[in-house]
Amino acid sequence: MVATDLPTLGIIAGAGSLPRRIADRCAAQGRHFHLLLLDGHADPALHAGLTFQTVRLGAAGEMFERMREAGCREVVFAGKVERPSWRALRPDWRATKFIAEFAFRADKGDNALMAAIVATCEAEGFKVRAPAELLGESQMPPGPLGRLSPDGPQRDDIRLGITVARAIGRLDVGHAVVVQAGLVLGVEAAEGTDRLIERCGALRRDGVGPILIKLRKPQQEIRADPPTIGPATVACAAAAGFSGIAIEAGGTLVIDPEATVADADRAGLFLLAVEAPE
Amino acid sequence: MVATDLPTLGIIAGAGSLPRRIADRCAAQGRHFHLLLLDGHADPALHAGLTFQTVRLGAAGEMFERMREAGCREVVFAGKVERPSWRALRPDWRATKFIAEFAFRADKGDNALMAAIVATCEAEGFKVRAPAELLGESQMPPGPLGRLSPDGPQRDDIRLGITVARAIGRLDVGHAVVVQAGLVLGVEAAEGTDRLIERCGALRRDGVGPILIKLRKPQQEIRADPPTIGPATVACAAAAGFSGIAIEAGGTLVIDPEATVADADRAGLFLLAVEAPE
Repeated sequence: MVATDLPTLGIIAGAGSLPRRIADRCAAQGRHFHLLLLDGHADPALHAGLTFQTVRLGAAGEMFERMREAGCREVVFAGKVERPSWRALRPDWRATKFIAEFAFRADKGDNALMAAIVATCEAEGFKVRAPAELLGESQMPPGPLGRLSPDGPQRDDIRLGITVARAIGRLDVGHAVVVQAGLVLGVEAAEGTDRLIERCGALRRDGVGPILIKLRKPQQEIRADPPTIGPATVACAAAAGFSGIAIEAGGTLVIDPEATVADADRAGLFLLAVEAPE
Repeated sequence: MVATDLPTLGIIAGAGSLPRRIADRCAAQGRHFHLLLLDGHADPALHAGLTFQTVRLGAAGEMFERMREAGCREVVFAGKVERPSWRALRPDWRATKFIAEFAFRADKGDNALMAAIVATCEAEGFKVRAPAELLGESQMPPGPLGRLSPDGPQRDDIRLGITVARAIGRLDVGHAVVVQAGLVLGVEAAEGTDRLIERCGALRRDGVGPILIKLRKPQQEIRADPPTIGPATVACAAAAGFSGIAIEAGGTLVIDPEATVADADRAGLFLLAVEAPE
């Protein structure tokens, strides 16, 4: 099946860059998509240059209608959505029906809520896809992913990076840290990992190159924008003179793992999945 | 007295940017200085473009000789120096004599050591100056320093900034954090405060501008490079669209306080000294 045979994808977008990455991936595949930004949750600035409509979280009927008009047969929920108060939600008839049905379920946790949303969407005729599946992302088991491994001093730098990444993750600041020979060169906040890597390349000392350490935030929700690396991260790190990348086994997603590992091997970077204590 | 009448200053340089800042200040005043980098402690890259000699920490006789040759009558110890092992120190005759005398003192803490070094230097005919005095820096009492004060939401951002700055300070990563409307835009590591401000300017959201929060590291030694702001920081923050700067009362030094406050008032930035819990 060629990519353009894929059905139009409805992207219901919450906060963060995950919906944008899915839209970009669709564009790269030549797949049609229809982007619905949830008002007050999704950041329009992150979707600059794309066509989108904005809908209220409580306007379930409108969402289904818009997706049908756009010819969507598949849908993905991407990005974080803070649960609003009932008052702020102002549910339409369709959302009220959903809430009423959901209210009779025993287990009202987030997983049950997601399961109920999936069941409702499928009853309306849409197939619900997972973000990781659309992006071709994988969680990795612990150990080196490619040909190279860090040496002793690099492992010390990774340990330091884990400590700092956990501290900034716990404070919801960012996922990534760059360390070189015991010195923290940079800490990620709002700028994103690629720009962190670029500026740390400019701050690089002589000797063995810096290491990127990128972990899940300890409190990170499963539906939130998870930390990811991929071929673009490897290219960026190689260009900046890095010596390797450490990710969290079972926590940091790898986009297109085969290409990511092959690119790291070719660039002479180690790629290590670590088990990081919380 | 005009600036060039000041006697030549000997700068004995340990780690960090403090010795460089003192040298730059001398240059701005037209004051002659002689820069001695302590081998293995001072980073030559931080003194690029300046003339310097390198001496061993244990070579006290050579230090005095170099300073006399250069016509120094005043001297400043600037930047952090990790205490070496006796073996690594390899003290010359003059340093051995100092150690022997110092060894007979009851109190062998860092303050006693500094007092003994000062006494030895003055016995050799040099006046020892404090870095803060040479830089015209002041510690500030709590409260607004200029005309403007932060409002309620800005005070929330300052509180968030303090929490994050304390966490990264405790890990010895950096002094400064930038927050805007509840979002941590950037965290300082090796890049320095001015570059942090510049990149956060580029990440700035609409609305009330970001705030720089710059604190002492909780474990910071008195002789180590203390956190500072000054007119250059205010100019940088104003150019990047910031709304204010929060420093630590009694902890963050202000270079040329009168000019710093006047510049902040003119640029419409608040400048607040806060008492930050450790």
